[in-house]
Amino acid sequence: MLITFEGIEGCGKSTQVDLLFDYLNGKGHRVIKTREPGGTAYGEALRDVALRKNIEVFPLSELLTIMAIRAQHVEELILPALQDRAIIVCDRFVDASYAYQGYGRGIDLGIIETLNRLVTKGVRPNLTVLIDCPAGLGLKRKAKNDRSLDRFEKENLSFHRKIRNAYLKLAKEDKNRFFVVDGKAKVSVVSTIIRENVESLLIRYGFE
Amino acid sequence: MLITFEGIEGCGKSTQVDLLFDYLNGKGHRVIKTREPGGTAYGEALRDVALRKNIEVFPLSELLTIMAIRAQHVEELILPALQDRAIIVCDRFVDASYAYQGYGRGIDLGIIETLNRLVTKGVRPNLTVLIDCPAGLGLKRKAKNDRSLDRFEKENLSFHRKIRNAYLKLAKEDKNRFFVVDGKAKVSVVSTIIRENVESLLIRYGFE
Repeated sequence: MLITFEGIEGCGKSTQVDLLFDYLNGKGHRVIKTREPGGTAYGEALRDVALRKNIEVFPLSELLTIMAIRAQHVEELILPALQDRAIIVCDRFVDASYAYQGYGRGIDLGIIETLNRLVTKGVRPNLTVLIDCPAGLGLKRKAKNDRSLDRFEKENLSFHRKIRNAYLKLAKEDKNRFFVVDGKAKVSVVSTIIRENVESLLIRYGFE
Repeated sequence: MLITFEGIEGCGKSTQVDLLFDYLNGKGHRVIKTREPGGTAYGEALRDVALRKNIEVFPLSELLTIMAIRAQHVEELILPALQDRAIIVCDRFVDASYAYQGYGRGIDLGIIETLNRLVTKGVRPNLTVLIDCPAGLGLKRKAKNDRSLDRFEKENLSFHRKIRNAYLKLAKEDKNRFFVVDGKAKVSVVSTIIRENVESLLIRYGFE
């Protein structure tokens, strides 16, 4: 079972990934928490390079770096975990490429789809939780965390608005897979809503 | 004008790239020396990760990393230099992907061709110098250099034999572009042969 989380910077994604992981873990499930870009030793090392602030990266090169990371992630971690009937909770996956490199950077969506198909080897998320939140709120939250911002976080408000709208569009186009939560709500409220949704999914797939 | 050099590890490629660069430079041409994987700040940083010895990299991920590096290389350096009518001398380019990731790692050649077409944006080498040398000799030369070997150099003899044969096959399939030199010959002999070939190319393209 693959559960992915998507959303703009500062939407509360990582917090909710942690909370869901702890919850499922506490219930005795075999759960793996992972993220993109990253998730493997090779992928995390590429991520470090790809997010560096002071380096200029062309959109196509950025996309191919993300795809290199995803190819490694799928083969090294996700496919074996799925065969092992583990529950994978993943912070960003295929949809982030459409949102960021497609709608955000302007790369042709068909190219992204072709590459996603090549690297995922048929893996599709069973559930994608989109934590929706206004771009201004997300950026304000990020700025509060007292650390330097990476290449994506440094983008301006209009870029992050584009990403938010892209995610909402993607969710609308694939209603069966996406579950949209209001990221403006309290952390505990958001986590409860997500838990309920995941619980019904686990029952449906025979995990409970 | 784009002149690329190809060949297995230890064939003498980098030495000949340096010699040709110095020669053309000395003649007053605007020459740029570059390499793959690498060639840009971003590409060199990705290269450092991709060649690390102690990291497992799946073939498809390796290919996509190389393509990310090439996309950046073409857009940031090669295309502007070509528009500037510079002579680019490049240590490895598109053919290395067919040889290493295709024939070496077993990735479908059609996938490599599609990706090469995507990232090169129509750029094709005007001349590709293949320095051919037996795999055993190449590896012996590499081992002499007293430094630790990277992920590719660490591959065994049969891998490097495959790469050599792949390069010879590629050269045979595109005789107009490839120029094959015997890498067993002395450095000065090899460099003279290459110079003569490049000179006639420069005249043909109006650089002299």
